[in-house]
Amino acid sequence: MFGEFLENVKIKKPIIHNITNFVTANDCANILLAAGASPIMANEYKEMADITRLSHGLNINLGTINDSLVPSMLLAGKLSNDLSHPVVLDLVGVGASSYRFDVCKRLIEQIKFSVVKGNISEIKTLILEKNFSNGVDAVSLDQVSENSILNSLETIKSYAKKVQCTLVVTGPVDLVTNGDQSILIENGHTIMADITGSGCMLSALISAFISSNKDKIFKATAAAVSAFGLAGEIAYTRLNDLDGSGSFRTYLIDGIYNMRPDDLNKNSKCKII
Amino acid sequence: MFGEFLENVKIKKPIIHNITNFVTANDCANILLAAGASPIMANEYKEMADITRLSHGLNINLGTINDSLVPSMLLAGKLSNDLSHPVVLDLVGVGASSYRFDVCKRLIEQIKFSVVKGNISEIKTLILEKNFSNGVDAVSLDQVSENSILNSLETIKSYAKKVQCTLVVTGPVDLVTNGDQSILIENGHTIMADITGSGCMLSALISAFISSNKDKIFKATAAAVSAFGLAGEIAYTRLNDLDGSGSFRTYLIDGIYNMRPDDLNKNSKCKII
Amino acid sequence: MFGEFLENVKIKKPIIHNITNFVTANDCANILLAAGASPIMANEYKEMADITRLSHGLNINLGTINDSLVPSMLLAGKLSNDLSHPVVLDLVGVGASSYRFDVCKRLIEQIKFSVVKGNISEIKTLILEKNFSNGVDAVSLDQVSENSILNSLETIKSYAKKVQCTLVVTGPVDLVTNGDQSILIENGHTIMADITGSGCMLSALISAFISSNKDKIFKATAAAVSAFGLAGEIAYTRLNDLDGSGSFRTYLIDGIYNMRPDDLNKNSKCKII
Repeated sequence: MFGEFLENVKIKKPIIHNITNFVTANDCANILLAAGASPIMANEYKEMADITRLSHGLNINLGTINDSLVPSMLLAGKLSNDLSHPVVLDLVGVGASSYRFDVCKRLIEQIKFSVVKGNISEIKTLILEKNFSNGVDAVSLDQVSENSILNSLETIKSYAKKVQCTLVVTGPVDLVTNGDQSILIENGHTIMADITGSGCMLSALISAFISSNKDKIFKATAAAVSAFGLAGEIAYTRLNDLDGSGSFRTYLIDGIYNMRPDDLNKNSKCKII
Repeated sequence: MFGEFLENVKIKKPIIHNITNFVTANDCANILLAAGASPIMANEYKEMADITRLSHGLNINLGTINDSLVPSMLLAGKLSNDLSHPVVLDLVGVGASSYRFDVCKRLIEQIKFSVVKGNISEIKTLILEKNFSNGVDAVSLDQVSENSILNSLETIKSYAKKVQCTLVVTGPVDLVTNGDQSILIENGHTIMADITGSGCMLSALISAFISSNKDKIFKATAAAVSAFGLAGEIAYTRLNDLDGSGSFRTYLIDGIYNMRPDDLNKNSKCKII
Repeated sequence: MFGEFLENVKIKKPIIHNITNFVTANDCANILLAAGASPIMANEYKEMADITRLSHGLNINLGTINDSLVPSMLLAGKLSNDLSHPVVLDLVGVGASSYRFDVCKRLIEQIKFSVVKGNISEIKTLILEKNFSNGVDAVSLDQVSENSILNSLETIKSYAKKVQCTLVVTGPVDLVTNGDQSILIENGHTIMADITGSGCMLSALISAFISSNKDKIFKATAAAVSAFGLAGEIAYTRLNDLDGSGSFRTYLIDGIYNMRPDDLNKNSKCKII
């Protein structure tokens, strides 16, 4: 079911422009290459129009946001909209400061995002315009279990409909919804939260998947979430007694590199809700 | 003896704010996560106050210092002082330029640091206000052996007393002193100098340890230095004939990830002097 | 033949100043350390003169170029010229925007580069002043095979003569030419294109090799290209069925770390043309 979306990444080799944080930029570039896409990281305002024109998709990440990046994000985002390039927003730490929240609001007002991704704290901050955040990690009491997600589902769905995008809520179970269709993805492993950049890599991967499957944004997003979770499962099984988060990070990228469309078809765990 | 300090990191999961260089930010985030802490990297002046308030400790690193970072460092540092959050300064390359030395002096004048860390060249540059540096690495003729450290010990101790902080002097043997108490840490392996970021990761780790043990800054610092050295020893023993600094870096993070308080109790090598 | 150049890196331990992108800075630092050199990454204009004076070579990389970096590049580049420090330019994505192309032209007009490196698209963009680029990767139909390189050889050679530098054209086969002498390097593996930073690491390595062999720029450049390709070959042979680009990246750094001058003498594959 999801394999075709991965196959299209490998066939189309989309160029993904990332305006992202300096902490995990290397991981994002490597996961894109591992999937068969081609990454470009560029921030300078004066080259945003050219870079946007040669790219097939845009990935905006709030991780180490600063004032000098905002005009570049707005220009690249709006031009991507004009060119019908899918745009992804990763809400990293949106509740960590009122500055970050305000930047996020400006971006969402001026750019039409195909996909917006965050953990449950970040998504709640976005929707309820209140700060539920605890740094960049989700509030532990409030992580996405199947129960907690069902409690918030209607709120999340109606926001997705209002802003006309696909929302991804990450956690032990991941939710993907566009308001009309909703799916729970049960691939993944808790150790993924023990490395930096797993969320950022997922956003980059989503960008590659939706840019290669532009007419099926919702399903392509779910496919990317499932593929990344599956890579995490495979990576986890490889760990020996002395291996930890360092080795896991390496194996996670290996997992995407070696994943064939059929592996994804066979091992996706999802539930339409 | 040191295990309880590591245990407190795992229990308290402190949020550590890093204003650090872009070269090793990923390593710093990963080592913090590996230890059980939660990293946040943020530089924008406009969000410094919010980020500081939600954090438990601050780690300032001079690695790729530039003028736009200094106001953020000062604001976050001073507010951390007001909130009684421990603040660490990593002197990366303090003697590499008079600019860097001047920034360092401004920081030390305006912020009360709990811990200041550097190699012997960097510490001497700081104390003697002369340039003993050779880029970011220690001058090789002047590395910390037990002898050389004893020669400089009184100078280092009296500086620590004067600025009322704990000093960490890294090298083949590491010295931790607050002027009253001094300890040599003999954990570690020379290959740690063959990867970038081992010093930066140590500073991040110290931040996590002292933020989780605020009433025992000196001992918690020594515990972090010992834990990091021990992780290096464990990582080194895992290397096969084809492995080198690339694999070592991965295993070093694994080493912190898998370290239990009891491992640290059993394998710390230190000498009170 | 090439071993002596590597040996000189290990003996002289040159300090290489990198003004480079934030995506692969960590990889560049690690590859330099693995080879026995000492990296420093610094961008602040106010410390450029000091940093240049303590360094032995300069590596400029266009990867995430922005306006604030250009004055630092110009100052460091011109002072390096005055001090007879070799300077390398990596043309990352020079055809990706007219901004990037203009910055590149300014750098080449004002700084004398010892070595300029790019893939065939980037080199053609530079020489023909037309955009042949497809993001940061080479246009696939136009990669460097022995045939395509021979087709463009005279053009590339005459440009190298005109600007009096050594040109490196990377691809499945790498070309090194200074106009008078030309050599094809056949070390390497296609998987090297599946990680980010392999090009950037090569530029850093070239900087270390030529800074340690200042009177033999052409040969030292070829030696660095061969050494890096050989490390890629060794890394590839280590991959098991589950390993992919993540493990490859680690093993690549290991490959440089463990490479002895004699290994390079025995396993270089090159053809003088």
